[in-house]
Amino acid sequence: MPYIEIPGGVTAARGFLAGSAYCGIKASNKDRPDIALIHSPQPTVAAGTFTTNRVKAAPVRVSIMNVRSPDVRAIVANAGNANACTGVRGIEDAKAMAAATAAALNLRDRQVLVCSTGRIGVPLPIDKMRETIAKLPAECSATGSLAAAEAIMTSDTKPKEIAVECEIEGTDGSRVRIGGIAKGAGMIDPNMATMLCFITTDAVIEKKLLERALSVSVEQSFNRITIDGDMSTNDTVLMLANGLAGNKPLRYGSPAFKVFQRSLDHLTKNLARLIVEDGEGVTKFVEVHVHGAASLTDARRAAEAVANSNLVKCAWFGNDPNWGRLMDAIGYSGARMREELVDIYYDGFLGVKGGMASKTPFAKLQEIVSAPRFSITIDLHAGTSEYSVYTTDLSVDYVKLNMGE
Amino acid sequence: MPYIEIPGGVTAARGFLAGSAYCGIKASNKDRPDIALIHSPQPTVAAGTFTTNRVKAAPVRVSIMNVRSPDVRAIVANAGNANACTGVRGIEDAKAMAAATAAALNLRDRQVLVCSTGRIGVPLPIDKMRETIAKLPAECSATGSLAAAEAIMTSDTKPKEIAVECEIEGTDGSRVRIGGIAKGAGMIDPNMATMLCFITTDAVIEKKLLERALSVSVEQSFNRITIDGDMSTNDTVLMLANGLAGNKPLRYGSPAFKVFQRSLDHLTKNLARLIVEDGEGVTKFVEVHVHGAASLTDARRAAEAVANSNLVKCAWFGNDPNWGRLMDAIGYSGARMREELVDIYYDGFLGVKGGMASKTPFAKLQEIVSAPRFSITIDLHAGTSEYSVYTTDLSVDYVKLNMGE
Repeated sequence: MPYIEIPGGVTAARGFLAGSAYCGIKASNKDRPDIALIHSPQPTVAAGTFTTNRVKAAPVRVSIMNVRSPDVRAIVANAGNANACTGVRGIEDAKAMAAATAAALNLRDRQVLVCSTGRIGVPLPIDKMRETIAKLPAECSATGSLAAAEAIMTSDTKPKEIAVECEIEGTDGSRVRIGGIAKGAGMIDPNMATMLCFITTDAVIEKKLLERALSVSVEQSFNRITIDGDMSTNDTVLMLANGLAGNKPLRYGSPAFKVFQRSLDHLTKNLARLIVEDGEGVTKFVEVHVHGAASLTDARRAAEAVANSNLVKCAWFGNDPNWGRLMDAIGYSGARMREELVDIYYDGFLGVKGGMASKTPFAKLQEIVSAPRFSITIDLHAGTSEYSVYTTDLSVDYVKLNMGE
Repeated sequence: MPYIEIPGGVTAARGFLAGSAYCGIKASNKDRPDIALIHSPQPTVAAGTFTTNRVKAAPVRVSIMNVRSPDVRAIVANAGNANACTGVRGIEDAKAMAAATAAALNLRDRQVLVCSTGRIGVPLPIDKMRETIAKLPAECSATGSLAAAEAIMTSDTKPKEIAVECEIEGTDGSRVRIGGIAKGAGMIDPNMATMLCFITTDAVIEKKLLERALSVSVEQSFNRITIDGDMSTNDTVLMLANGLAGNKPLRYGSPAFKVFQRSLDHLTKNLARLIVEDGEGVTKFVEVHVHGAASLTDARRAAEAVANSNLVKCAWFGNDPNWGRLMDAIGYSGARMREELVDIYYDGFLGVKGGMASKTPFAKLQEIVSAPRFSITIDLHAGTSEYSVYTTDLSVDYVKLNMGE
């Protein structure tokens, strides 16, 4: 591996500070800090990927603009209120969050990125938040990652952070570090399944290349997780690079850049996995691989149809291999396929051979899908393309947790 | 109304016979008849629409061929085994079902349409079925609709039949009749959510026009019901017309044809509604209308995204209006929309105005979604196209019923 995991989360990279404070944005939250700040006293280059939902929360709209700034210095994020479907006032409030943070840190407003997660359709308690934000810089430190990770949780049961040190030499023999925090797929009404992820690195890298690396990485991680197929109004991934490692600037295609990309991929994939595993009502984590598809689109369609099928997911919850439902989902996915060519493996054991029952005993397949983690590998024998997604079962608790207040 | 409902189901139209017999195709079925036959001693023209799933059950493949015959005389259908994912043997078995029926009725094999619903991936007990089919003609009568409707049930809780008499004069002042039976969305493992519908009419109508009428009608009924978004390997709608009413041949665009189309639409819509309402674990029946879309495709996308969203459906189950989840689903549906223009009505009460909370009290919206039937009307204010779908909530019982044996 060209990287090792290290502690420190989003403050593992040199020069980044993080922290949190309690505001009480959601009335029922009596004590847990609910605003997080990540601050870079050094100049940075920034990149972001945002929800493609046409209904975009106000902070998403503001951050899409501000991430273009040549020198972003801070990310401020609150839990408890999504500031989505809040109209013109929502945009003003999101800008006010940025302005309050800029004032507290002596920055220009455009140097601040904002995120919100939580209740939809209700205005932010912006006055109260201004007061809390003014106190936030004092709470930030180079060991504040966990505090920030906790402050962005909604119905997550655990904070999510990870950091890696990669084999890219910086000045004085030090190595480039990348760290991140995320919050996930908690979907208790009235929250949306918002996914937020903040990543920092001390690598020297140009903005364009950072954008490219992040978008490749997100495509292979957060864009491949599916719990219920719904895409939130607030989903956001942000990344800042401050160059403090002093490495030779990363160039596209260079060995060092490849190391950087692989390290970043490791980080985002693991945060994505943590999000899925901590999804509400999730009892099973399932990798769905499709091989031998006629095109990448076909592979993706087949994998997503299986991963999003309620009938498939209910069967998994019930420890039932039910390959017929898999065949059905592949069939309506739109992927080009001939049923008599399809093989399906459960953790490597052949469950379907040429579109029909294999000789593997049913009890063996049942044993596999009874485990909390397993993989489904589908070979369409129609080409050479492949795609993977990470998904879950559909449990009674999922319904109970999402049926309202 | 240019039609009235009459009793008699699929045998309401003159000259059609129906009946059923017990075979014991599914081991756990100890006494319920499980093979149905619809027989026309008179020549007919036939039309059919079939699942677009690329994984097609063997009987679907056989019926797609045989429905082209100029003179179909019988439909034979079994419950308990879908004869899907059964390879070459499955095709042979489906043909054997047709051959056995043809032998019993003294027809050519091609004059018989075959359907199966039930367990997937297991060969039919074809020898036993041959014996039962040989006895079936003796069980058929002009009052056998209910017997046939019951024999095709899988996990349906009720048989589904309906018939109408339309204002189209036949000979001797009699009127054209259309009748049908259906089985629906029972999805207990290991069955698929197979939908079968058989329709008969004594109208004089050409094959091409019958095909056209049926496909228009299916598009507005069965293609608009969604319980879990999955499409079965066996879905089939078949229609036979024997011309016994002796009406002036229906011509496309004529007033009489319009009456026929409206009558057929009424029949298919009501069978579709019965299927949704009898869906397993369904506690709510919801009509989702999208108006003001920029195109029909946009309207359909928005309606289907809402109707298939697990988060939306769980909220409904919990009596929670949760319009934020509706906005979210519309946003990711792919339909062109601007959130600030979207209005959403609950049973005619404004829940969302310009993409934000309306002044309607939350308690009122809550009262509406607590009822077993309600409608959601979404106005995108982006054009003049509209589309409607019929859907359900997502309940704890749905998961329990679909989690396996």
